[in-house]
Amino acid sequence: MNKDFIYLDHAAATPIDSRVIDVMMPYLTDQFFNPSSPYMPAVIVRRDYEDAKKTLANIIGGKPGEIIITAGATESINLAFKSISGHIVTSNIEHPAVLNCAKNHDNTIISADEKGFISADIVKKAITPQTQLVSIALANNEIGTIQPIRSIASVIKQERESRLVRGNTTPIYFHSDASQGVGQLDVNVARLGVDLLSLNAGKIYGPKQVGLLWAASHVKLEPLIFGGGQERNLRSGTENVAGTIGFAKALELAFDHHKFENERLAKLRDGLQELLTEAFPEAVVSGHAKHRLASHLHIAFSGIDGERLIFLLENRGVLVATGSACAANKGSKSHVLMAIGMSDELSSGSIRMTLGHLSSEESIKKAGEIIIEEINKEYIRVNR
Amino acid sequence: MNKDFIYLDHAAATPIDSRVIDVMMPYLTDQFFNPSSPYMPAVIVRRDYEDAKKTLANIIGGKPGEIIITAGATESINLAFKSISGHIVTSNIEHPAVLNCAKNHDNTIISADEKGFISADIVKKAITPQTQLVSIALANNEIGTIQPIRSIASVIKQERESRLVRGNTTPIYFHSDASQGVGQLDVNVARLGVDLLSLNAGKIYGPKQVGLLWAASHVKLEPLIFGGGQERNLRSGTENVAGTIGFAKALELAFDHHKFENERLAKLRDGLQELLTEAFPEAVVSGHAKHRLASHLHIAFSGIDGERLIFLLENRGVLVATGSACAANKGSKSHVLMAIGMSDELSSGSIRMTLGHLSSEESIKKAGEIIIEEINKEYIRVNR
Repeated sequence: MNKDFIYLDHAAATPIDSRVIDVMMPYLTDQFFNPSSPYMPAVIVRRDYEDAKKTLANIIGGKPGEIIITAGATESINLAFKSISGHIVTSNIEHPAVLNCAKNHDNTIISADEKGFISADIVKKAITPQTQLVSIALANNEIGTIQPIRSIASVIKQERESRLVRGNTTPIYFHSDASQGVGQLDVNVARLGVDLLSLNAGKIYGPKQVGLLWAASHVKLEPLIFGGGQERNLRSGTENVAGTIGFAKALELAFDHHKFENERLAKLRDGLQELLTEAFPEAVVSGHAKHRLASHLHIAFSGIDGERLIFLLENRGVLVATGSACAANKGSKSHVLMAIGMSDELSSGSIRMTLGHLSSEESIKKAGEIIIEEINKEYIRVNR
Repeated sequence: MNKDFIYLDHAAATPIDSRVIDVMMPYLTDQFFNPSSPYMPAVIVRRDYEDAKKTLANIIGGKPGEIIITAGATESINLAFKSISGHIVTSNIEHPAVLNCAKNHDNTIISADEKGFISADIVKKAITPQTQLVSIALANNEIGTIQPIRSIASVIKQERESRLVRGNTTPIYFHSDASQGVGQLDVNVARLGVDLLSLNAGKIYGPKQVGLLWAASHVKLEPLIFGGGQERNLRSGTENVAGTIGFAKALELAFDHHKFENERLAKLRDGLQELLTEAFPEAVVSGHAKHRLASHLHIAFSGIDGERLIFLLENRGVLVATGSACAANKGSKSHVLMAIGMSDELSSGSIRMTLGHLSSEESIKKAGEIIIEEINKEYIRVNR
């Protein structure tokens, strides 16, 4: 990457860790064998692939046989929803993959509060006797709010027990997309209390186009993609050996450093937030004050044109996003900002900064100064 | 790759071309940006991605907007089948991806002849007024028989015209999986006469986990994977930038050299075939004598244990397959060999050798000698 840039969009894409690309390279080159082939070099590739799945499973506290490798979180989410025939509960700030999958089902879309927080009580009220799936992301990718996954899991556990008593045999599963936050938060499936978990390697300095769905062994899945029967017949197609091995390394690194990195990013982010809110006391920081990803700073400046600001900042070498990258190029208002009740004016004056491995004390300080200068110039221009 | 091996399994997996990995590396490392992000480095990534799709489209004679990038041929095939609600015609020697997708529909499975050839007449007879899709692979991955795609396309064109006259508004599409043979045969969609084409980068010295579905603009597709709306809303998920750029380079190289490579492989393969059939006059070569991929040599030795032979050859450094790699590890008999009516004895004594970039005159000659030695030893052992 051009070292002149200050990259503040780690939630959109992360640069691959050199240690990850190093472990992948043999499988991208010499170890190219089809893992289903019978001779020893291919058997070794198969073993290395299975070992990578074991590593992934160990880190999230699952079993290797409960993991299906996908081409990313979007496919993982689609696979999680595929087997569901009944009612679905999800929220109005979920990723488009979840919202668009939910559309294919009878659903209830619950509302997050103005901090983007989803209360377990509201989830509880939305559950009907026909509900088969509740899907709530671990943390929101735009504003960074972290959800009370454990409390929601308790609600679902209660519902499951109550169904048992009532003789209702409809299963109910809890799915969480943990693509955002896996490098900062605990993603142990037992501690979270989920039945299904989606992860994305591309968000944690791993290879792009790799993700996984973890599904507890009691969850009955149905394939999204039919064919040669790979991945326990749930995801046919030659296995993604290099990608999975890179994913395992990336998750290992993320897990090993998540406490340190969480603290480091929180300190940097809080410093940046302080700098900006001191310079612009009327700026509005979105997301939950306490339960928020340490990487995320979503901030709105009334009267400023956010799209314009992004290009001004780019000219100064600072790369930031408006809302989520998914929505960025479509000129449509962020559904998350609408959901938390942000006014049009404020929403169009908002930028999202997401810190990560490329963020240092020095770069963040410099970014803060540049942002303040550019916003001041914009305020002068607008009020002239 | 260990240079001591003679690799004769190019149909199962191909080593990536160093020119392909070279063009991919920047996007696996520095150019990591999300193509949907608004700043210039991401816009450049988006442009490079779109350029790669243009290259892919140009080579097959389609338009860039008609291409959907997938995680491989299996997903491509699933996507092609997703929008079909009516009757499907396919053959009993198709890849499991096609056969398993067809199972989800009303279908007629026509029979290939003993050479694995599918006649256009039999396709014609199987088409009903409700038929919406005919799916026949360009070439069979096990025995290498090349199908009369243009004649089958004519049959479908006639049916389409006759429906127009009869006022039958049911559309009928022709799909072909051209994963095998794209480096050797012409894959121009107009010349083939197909409406849908599946390709796989991993079979042509490109990256694994990348494929495409080309669908003529008159074909109405439905998404398999829902989400952020990428790939014209037909395949959501962050775009596979590095993979697509590598795929384009691989297809370019395959196209540029396909005539030369086809002749080169045919000469090598014919030499090997001659060597083996002279040594074992009762050996049975499968597939069509004339319409067969130059890379493929599927040969059966009566009374020999094919599985055992594979390991004996591996000990001598020669890597070959039994049937298709997809079925290889499952211990089940190849559905293709059953379809062409091969006896159990002959089928279990068969090996598949597929030549490619790693094959040279010297290595093929050496492989032939080793195979003859090992089979002779086996015949002595068996008849002792």
